Amino acid sequence: MGRGNLEPERIVRLEQDRVVLLDQRRLPDEEVELACASAAEVAEAIRTLAVRGAPAIGVAAAYGYALAARRGEDLDSAFAVLASSRPTAVNLEWALREVCAADDPVARARELHAEEVERCRQMSAHAAALVGNGASALTHCNTGALATGGVGTALGGLREAWSRGLLRHVFVDETRPLLQGARLTAWELEAAGIPHTLIADSAAGGLLAAGEVDCVFVGADRVAANGDTANKVGTYPLAVLAARHDVPFYVVAPSSSVDLEVATGSEIPIEQRDPAEVSTRFAAWNPAFDVTPGELIAAVVTEHGVHRAPYAESLAQAVPA
Amino acid sequence: MGRGNLEPERIVRLEQDRVVLLDQRRLPDEEVELACASAAEVAEAIRTLAVRGAPAIGVAAAYGYALAARRGEDLDSAFAVLASSRPTAVNLEWALREVCAADDPVARARELHAEEVERCRQMSAHAAALVGNGASALTHCNTGALATGGVGTALGGLREAWSRGLLRHVFVDETRPLLQGARLTAWELEAAGIPHTLIADSAAGGLLAAGEVDCVFVGADRVAANGDTANKVGTYPLAVLAARHDVPFYVVAPSSSVDLEVATGSEIPIEQRDPAEVSTRFAAWNPAFDVTPGELIAAVVTEHGVHRAPYAESLAQAVPA
Repeated sequence: MGRGNLEPERIVRLEQDRVVLLDQRRLPDEEVELACASAAEVAEAIRTLAVRGAPAIGVAAAYGYALAARRGEDLDSAFAVLASSRPTAVNLEWALREVCAADDPVARARELHAEEVERCRQMSAHAAALVGNGASALTHCNTGALATGGVGTALGGLREAWSRGLLRHVFVDETRPLLQGARLTAWELEAAGIPHTLIADSAAGGLLAAGEVDCVFVGADRVAANGDTANKVGTYPLAVLAARHDVPFYVVAPSSSVDLEVATGSEIPIEQRDPAEVSTRFAAWNPAFDVTPGELIAAVVTEHGVHRAPYAESLAQAVPA
Repeated sequence: MGRGNLEPERIVRLEQDRVVLLDQRRLPDEEVELACASAAEVAEAIRTLAVRGAPAIGVAAAYGYALAARRGEDLDSAFAVLASSRPTAVNLEWALREVCAADDPVARARELHAEEVERCRQMSAHAAALVGNGASALTHCNTGALATGGVGTALGGLREAWSRGLLRHVFVDETRPLLQGARLTAWELEAAGIPHTLIADSAAGGLLAAGEVDCVFVGADRVAANGDTANKVGTYPLAVLAARHDVPFYVVAPSSSVDLEVATGSEIPIEQRDPAEVSTRFAAWNPAFDVTPGELIAAVVTEHGVHRAPYAESLAQAVPA
């Protein structure tokens, strides 16, 4: 596979009797595909992070449900096992409800994937317009093609800014404990030919203090009605540091990640993962996400445009009820 | 070796023709000693972090110089190679000047080690008095016996607070990239029987936001005259987060870490280490330290007591010119 050519169907696709995805646990060392023969196997792939990123797991779950429909699986069970595979991203349940309500789940799943690709294109254009000329950006986790099945959310915006000649450099948090930045984002940036530098997550403070960062771009797993945003653990510290150094902090996510049913971030369920991801030797606390208050976010970018505070108004206008 | 019995001479000691230290790179998996037969070998052990922690590298360097004197090495060269082994901690050069000026470098090096043990005892008592009853503390990197050759600085204070029945729990930043928290601090806390939980460095934000942390204790590699403090990378983000959540942030360090010659943190040289410690696959930026402004520090604790802002006055009174 040419890495410059990370087409949507390479991330996840539906074949006749299986869902096939690029196993992100093996990157960047190996580019290996994983075939899932049932909804339960797709759910397991989501749970174990073979595919991750809120938009991408929505697409994968939709394909998993479509596969179940095609195979004549019990669809209530298929819905339940897929919906419970990860708790924080709201896209997952949204995508499942979409395919569940469709006359032809297979066609609707494919359509959802195509819509996600188009939403990424739109988000990236809106986000790129926020990047100043010659700017250096800092990002966290992976929000690119691998996370979306399209060009990406936050990283898609940075790719678009690069193609417009605006972006100078991308600093990438390695993103402990699972190193999505060090394994996936750096790999995507290398393939795209965009200058990049990895840092330990805890080095972001010194980098911002040194004036090396002009803007921070991150994705979101769920955005509450007031703009509070759940995203990969470590996002909140970045937002606090960015505020201290007057660096704008942007969240880029499809409107399917905006959950108007949830008033504030405190209502968002935060997934707790296996402590062994942090340490196999000592007791550990391993939340997958944290919540960034809307007050620290300069703008939330969706496919509909750039939304600013007060988010209770700007998000409600952008997201159809 | 019984781990509850981490005596000063286990961390570093001078034998007849060598300096012997516990190789901290191998912990917690193996407890292996490293013998250094010359000042250059001691310098290499310091540079490669077989021994680390500002007070401990001061003691190791003093023994390295004493060994050189005993062996009849060129003492100017011995001083130079030891002094340049790491740039940020000021104790290193201070300890070398002490043994260099002494009539009997061997006796002075042993005396310095004993003084460091006593300073740790005094610092720990002052620091423990800052821990509220039933408090949970968060700490970064390793500031215990391994870092000092005594009971420790910040971690020594927490051990003393535990023995006084004040401390409930210690959260430990794993401390990327070299995992001194996950490898060394957790190991020391386990040996001391103190309840502890590891976290990814970037999880500290969510932990503080959840109200789980009552105080933060860290060490220092160098404290400027105005209270600005260089310490392990990731210290500054913790201080910013602690300030946001009104959690007191304490620095514990011997007066030998206070450098009144340096007016502010911007003058402290920050060691840049091999990017391969962060990634062997992609380009990386790897500063070993960052600088926390004195304004974010509730108190600096030395063997002389608890010093509060304005630090230009309180530190100058505490540290003899």
